[in-house]
Amino acid sequence: MNADDIVGFFARRQDLDPELYVELDFAFECAGDPREAAAHLASEQSTAQWRRVGVDEDFRPRFAAKVVDLDATPRETFSVPVDGVPATDVHHVRVTLAHPHGNFGPRLPNLLSAVCGEGVFFVPRIPLIRFLDIRFPVSLLAAFEGPRFGIAGLRGLLRAYDRPIFFGVIKPNIGLPAEPFAEIGYQAMAGGLDIAKDDEMLADAPWCPLAERAALLGDAARRASAETGAPKLYLANITDEVDRLIPLHDLAVARGAGAVLINAMPVGLSAVRMLRAHASVPLIAHFPFIASFARLPWYGIHARVLTRLQRLAGFDAVIMPGFGPRMMTPEAEVQDCIRACLEPMGDILTSLPVPGGSDSAATLERVFSKVGGVDFGFVPGRGVFGHPMGPAAGAASLRQAWDAIAAGVPVEERAAAHPELAAALAAFGG
Amino acid sequence: MNADDIVGFFARRQDLDPELYVELDFAFECAGDPREAAAHLASEQSTAQWRRVGVDEDFRPRFAAKVVDLDATPRETFSVPVDGVPATDVHHVRVTLAHPHGNFGPRLPNLLSAVCGEGVFFVPRIPLIRFLDIRFPVSLLAAFEGPRFGIAGLRGLLRAYDRPIFFGVIKPNIGLPAEPFAEIGYQAMAGGLDIAKDDEMLADAPWCPLAERAALLGDAARRASAETGAPKLYLANITDEVDRLIPLHDLAVARGAGAVLINAMPVGLSAVRMLRAHASVPLIAHFPFIASFARLPWYGIHARVLTRLQRLAGFDAVIMPGFGPRMMTPEAEVQDCIRACLEPMGDILTSLPVPGGSDSAATLERVFSKVGGVDFGFVPGRGVFGHPMGPAAGAASLRQAWDAIAAGVPVEERAAAHPELAAALAAFGG
Repeated sequence: MNADDIVGFFARRQDLDPELYVELDFAFECAGDPREAAAHLASEQSTAQWRRVGVDEDFRPRFAAKVVDLDATPRETFSVPVDGVPATDVHHVRVTLAHPHGNFGPRLPNLLSAVCGEGVFFVPRIPLIRFLDIRFPVSLLAAFEGPRFGIAGLRGLLRAYDRPIFFGVIKPNIGLPAEPFAEIGYQAMAGGLDIAKDDEMLADAPWCPLAERAALLGDAARRASAETGAPKLYLANITDEVDRLIPLHDLAVARGAGAVLINAMPVGLSAVRMLRAHASVPLIAHFPFIASFARLPWYGIHARVLTRLQRLAGFDAVIMPGFGPRMMTPEAEVQDCIRACLEPMGDILTSLPVPGGSDSAATLERVFSKVGGVDFGFVPGRGVFGHPMGPAAGAASLRQAWDAIAAGVPVEERAAAHPELAAALAAFGG
Repeated sequence: MNADDIVGFFARRQDLDPELYVELDFAFECAGDPREAAAHLASEQSTAQWRRVGVDEDFRPRFAAKVVDLDATPRETFSVPVDGVPATDVHHVRVTLAHPHGNFGPRLPNLLSAVCGEGVFFVPRIPLIRFLDIRFPVSLLAAFEGPRFGIAGLRGLLRAYDRPIFFGVIKPNIGLPAEPFAEIGYQAMAGGLDIAKDDEMLADAPWCPLAERAALLGDAARRASAETGAPKLYLANITDEVDRLIPLHDLAVARGAGAVLINAMPVGLSAVRMLRAHASVPLIAHFPFIASFARLPWYGIHARVLTRLQRLAGFDAVIMPGFGPRMMTPEAEVQDCIRACLEPMGDILTSLPVPGGSDSAATLERVFSKVGGVDFGFVPGRGVFGHPMGPAAGAASLRQAWDAIAAGVPVEERAAAHPELAAALAAFGG
């Protein structure tokens, strides 16, 4: 690119119609002129060749992504070893692009192709790049359906207000037949869970068929609800081939599931959007695959981007890697993902953030204080189903911990009068 | 885990029925005992809790992933800075797991959830891990359809044998209306391309609707075929929301497309498998998103795994990052992906590997020699549509280069009598 070419990929924000663009934030490390690198980034993800040979035309004004912010800091070398790019004149660069969304339209696969494709990860002299965030104009958001229930709708179904929503992952997750599986799910719901859920790896398995499981757990939820006076939901994992999503949704719901779990990336966000148009119960996202590109600080895609896209695709709740060393995710990034569920997004409803990872009654207070509010889901597995006194006691220990927190009483103090809570702190605390 | 727990996740290969397992290769760096880390890896991706509390049972024999090979080498520290895991007693470990495929069945989303999920990227004391390869038993492969055409089928459609298949990406990719877009596509097919293709970012756009584009380019392919006596195909990008894939396939094919392009990850592999059951023309994969998790040597998922899964999902050709510094992919990994298209895979047909990246007549010989055979596709963009003499000359320059290579004549020597080739070498060589 020459100097004229580069200028064609820069713009002042105030000269652009904000309704025509998504804004994309990237952090990258480049060799050579940061402005030229940023122009390449804009060019590669939009009009890499903006005229025909021998024709006097320029597609950049309408179709080019444009650099609207750039902040470059010199560095000694790249953050990590890089092959094939000499580490000379290295800069760390924060850049915001305005990308014309008319190039791809309100379609998730085409959006992903433009902003997570060759035009990001194969840009000359940018060996390290992380896609940090995306902002949508209201005009584009209006073309998406978003969650059908959102947090308010989920709370209404459960009649659970002013407190976290208590999920539990039924364990053993793999291998247990439907009958004992449903029995421990029942115990946990009777003990205090709002939602008993399948593990993300348990689908329609021959040793625990979804039809049988949904019937038994639907019945378990009804019984636990009748006994406790509180609504209970069985969350059925219907992750499967795309052409089975709607049939499995219908089957699970007809048998007794009150919500369905889908592994968002393995199934694909667009398939989730298709399901959203049909589904009659809340859709809950799980996070397999995302860490493969979201974990590292200087390469890949920040999980917040995927959180926003999961909300856009229609998930009413998003299970995500949560706080603490177990999930290997910096606290600030967990907070970013939680905010992406909760903050305003045109007319798109909120999604319930469910930060998870080796939780139990012993971690509830920490999670609550880090979230800074009650709008979250709490999703232990072993903390309920590995509780030494059994799943009912495991679930009870969560509610006892929450009652203490809500009353402003130290959880350890409350444990003196509640053996379930005391046992949870002894088994999982420390 | 105690020593007994660890032993339950190890097995000798000869004690397992190979038809019941997929084999997974990982490279990881861990802190502490490598055997314990490997046992955690096996446990987290299968039966992390293998018995109920108070019940004498063990789900591991049938359901656990098992370590069948382990090779650990001490290291001073981690390859790159790692948060939250102390760099003491660090090892680099190569491990092979036998993972019981009955846990997920012949279903791509469930497979991905098990082998690219929480059980790989959130394993205690394994902060760096790369999923290197997967091997399927014949019994599992038999449940997949794979490509309908494969390389032999594609060659038959094009009547192109004993040479590479010449694709060209019509450029400018974004912004050009259908009529001039089809005109340059026509020129390039008349000049020698086998397949004129849409860019992966050009879908059903308002300024270039797929219906109109497919009609014009279908006609262009027919005219170029009649004039040259060789079959020509227009490859239409139908990447779109999942519920539009089949309608857009039908529309594009009815209007004149001879093959369809799908961005595999943005659409989702399972949606591709759904389309495969319906499609009447070859399916060609493009690679957006894959680099976000496939680029780094010590983290993520090797692109070869995705190549195998794209073939399994039914792609007849897989466009992938190719040779040379432009695509930032080590040569050995490009070779790995090419082999994944070509090597035996039960009864699953081969896929044509199409290693791409800033190609032209000037790079053809290098690509041919690196592939080591004629079973590949060659996919220039600018090398055809940015050729200084126009697209027909750009396409002709590819065929001239190939004729020289096939005749054992140096390409530069052949250029003396062929101005199109000479111009390509001058513009793109060096």
